Amino acid sequence: MIDIEKANAETTQRMIEAHPVLVGLGKAKDVIPGMEDNMLLHAGPPITWERACGTLKGAVIGALLWEGKAKTEQEAVQLMVEKKIKLSPCHHHQAVGPMAGIISPSMSVYIVENKTHGNRAFCNLNEGYGKVLRYGAFSQDVLDRLRWLEDVVAPVMKEAILETKGIDMRSLISEALHMGDEGHNRNKAGTLLFLKAISPAIAKVCKNSLTASQILDFTGNNALWVLNPIMASCKAIADSAMGIEGSTIVCTMARNGTDFGIRISGLGKEEWFTAPAQIPKGLYFSGFKAEDANPDIGDSTITETSGIGAFAMAAAPAIVTFVSGTPKDALNSTLEMYEITHGKHRFFTIPQLDFQGTPVGIDIRKVVEKGITPRVNTGIAHKNPGVGQIGAGLVRPPMEIFEQALFAFAKKYNFE
Amino acid sequence: MIDIEKANAETTQRMIEAHPVLVGLGKAKDVIPGMEDNMLLHAGPPITWERACGTLKGAVIGALLWEGKAKTEQEAVQLMVEKKIKLSPCHHHQAVGPMAGIISPSMSVYIVENKTHGNRAFCNLNEGYGKVLRYGAFSQDVLDRLRWLEDVVAPVMKEAILETKGIDMRSLISEALHMGDEGHNRNKAGTLLFLKAISPAIAKVCKNSLTASQILDFTGNNALWVLNPIMASCKAIADSAMGIEGSTIVCTMARNGTDFGIRISGLGKEEWFTAPAQIPKGLYFSGFKAEDANPDIGDSTITETSGIGAFAMAAAPAIVTFVSGTPKDALNSTLEMYEITHGKHRFFTIPQLDFQGTPVGIDIRKVVEKGITPRVNTGIAHKNPGVGQIGAGLVRPPMEIFEQALFAFAKKYNFE
Repeated sequence: MIDIEKANAETTQRMIEAHPVLVGLGKAKDVIPGMEDNMLLHAGPPITWERACGTLKGAVIGALLWEGKAKTEQEAVQLMVEKKIKLSPCHHHQAVGPMAGIISPSMSVYIVENKTHGNRAFCNLNEGYGKVLRYGAFSQDVLDRLRWLEDVVAPVMKEAILETKGIDMRSLISEALHMGDEGHNRNKAGTLLFLKAISPAIAKVCKNSLTASQILDFTGNNALWVLNPIMASCKAIADSAMGIEGSTIVCTMARNGTDFGIRISGLGKEEWFTAPAQIPKGLYFSGFKAEDANPDIGDSTITETSGIGAFAMAAAPAIVTFVSGTPKDALNSTLEMYEITHGKHRFFTIPQLDFQGTPVGIDIRKVVEKGITPRVNTGIAHKNPGVGQIGAGLVRPPMEIFEQALFAFAKKYNFE
Repeated sequence: MIDIEKANAETTQRMIEAHPVLVGLGKAKDVIPGMEDNMLLHAGPPITWERACGTLKGAVIGALLWEGKAKTEQEAVQLMVEKKIKLSPCHHHQAVGPMAGIISPSMSVYIVENKTHGNRAFCNLNEGYGKVLRYGAFSQDVLDRLRWLEDVVAPVMKEAILETKGIDMRSLISEALHMGDEGHNRNKAGTLLFLKAISPAIAKVCKNSLTASQILDFTGNNALWVLNPIMASCKAIADSAMGIEGSTIVCTMARNGTDFGIRISGLGKEEWFTAPAQIPKGLYFSGFKAEDANPDIGDSTITETSGIGAFAMAAAPAIVTFVSGTPKDALNSTLEMYEITHGKHRFFTIPQLDFQGTPVGIDIRKVVEKGITPRVNTGIAHKNPGVGQIGAGLVRPPMEIFEQALFAFAKKYNFE
């Protein structure tokens, strides 16, 4: 007879003890396992071009233009329709990407190593707010910014990361939670902690002082800069807890803008449980409304999967100015998540709750039994390709994917 | 008949509307009004060498050695005993200094301008933690670090501040309070916000990349770096509210390590009310205890005077790991201060209290009537010259200075 409690304790313990350190930067085609020349990685569970949402399609078009695989939007669409380019989930390649999550072969990605368990994870660079590729925009300025990131920022960042001898991301996240971040939608402090760690190295390795100045300016003033290395860190954390026999803990939550998908530690890596993604509730930028919104999208739910994001929202009361609600709602977000998680984090703590650890290790049994789905903080993308971000808010996965997963678990382990 | 409520409303309003901006850096002898070649500025109310505490004496000795006025400790003491060097309070020169608060003629000071009312204020550079001049240490490594600050950091910082076109300190403080700082003893976020503002400028103006790297490393990793420009900002705020006829609001709280002194808006600039400073209660560094502590010292209480520091402690629950207590105590600190203040700040708000403004404008009538003295967060210095910081904690001014002030107020305005 399988001991689920014991298995879940092990899964959660592995997540807590994982120790992600940012160790490098490299081109996706050089460092991401299974990356192919005619492949694009995307957020969420597997999806076909035909079923892809507008945001994802826009980002695919942009990436193909940027890679020089297509010269026009039409050419890009043609390539996809004719299946000349493969779509593969980031999550099948130890990678994650925010929103559309497109990683193309020539893009640079962070390399995060889990020093406890030895596994690695990857995430692309953050482009900033608004009209950006990950929100489905692909105009020339979007592509130009990506080019600057790749050709100017990435080489300096790569050398600077090596110069730092590695940035301890577990410490960084831990400290950011004491500075009003929750690590997903509010990353003001984490970004500045990253700047603190990297700026002396950037000044040292970048021989062009004007370039160094521009890179420091861009990273410091993009309050989401650190989201991507944090996501890679959370991916390294969650992956290390995957595959524990008999565990009902969620190790992946991810959305492709059409479906919300989860994977469970005690079930197969290939086994996704999916259902239609929902429209987030939140605050919209001037001129946009809920009808413009794409359904929930992105791999950034890896943060909640690992015990931060909406799960740590009690630490980030000021976030409500961005995602809606009151500081009391932020507190309740964390308190509610204790009901569906296995344990409390040892390194990620919340001063407001007397330094209690964040809720970590989502147990699908508790989700189904209590009727409480995980809370998620998220950006909101326009549903049409080419527009970009239109707001930020709160969302939950559909309950049925947890029911499906529990059913599959019962079947595999003969609980029927 | 004087309308005290109206006067206090004006005083508090001036504090709230003051808009401090860091506009430059210059040598004390060039920019501080009334600074003389044979003068040292110090923290707190006026004091003679004979009555000065060990911490202050140590810092005076260090400054005289550093300035080259004395070659040995004995020579320095001799200069002071023979009154060859004048001691004058920073507060008499639009300046403030943390702990001993020694500003010598050749030291560089921040120049903060209050854009609303036009007045300026000054504060020296922060040397970091531990064995430093402001805590009364004066060994060669202390003097060497001061030399490096003056000869290497200050020229770059001066040019970089000009390059930024000014750093908006009101915005910086406001944002830092949303990131877990209280602006006095916890300045982790504020320091990184300062780094964000200044690092692109440093990279640009500093042609030696190794020097730029070292300056970014020192400022980013000294979590008190921003305390000094914040203190100058609070001084600019408080000074602009001084001299309102009929006001019972405190515009200065300062300690020289022997006496705690206050000045009141509606009474004269020259009129200090003083009584013996108390020993802070707090957490001591390993190897030190309360018996080693110097009484409360420093001008940094200008933060509480202006509505941050212990008054904003509800925003900074993680500070209790540094100054003792629990997050609940931090919350209570702010809540209690509402009882003795005139108003709530418009720009400095606390997410944890539903974005309520911090308590601002200490009313001596309320202090005396309710028997509640202002709360203060503070560093703790060793009582002997030459040692340095030994802890951090909480303290309150003696009640009798508020009683003295109220008595003087009653006398001046014929309330007797």
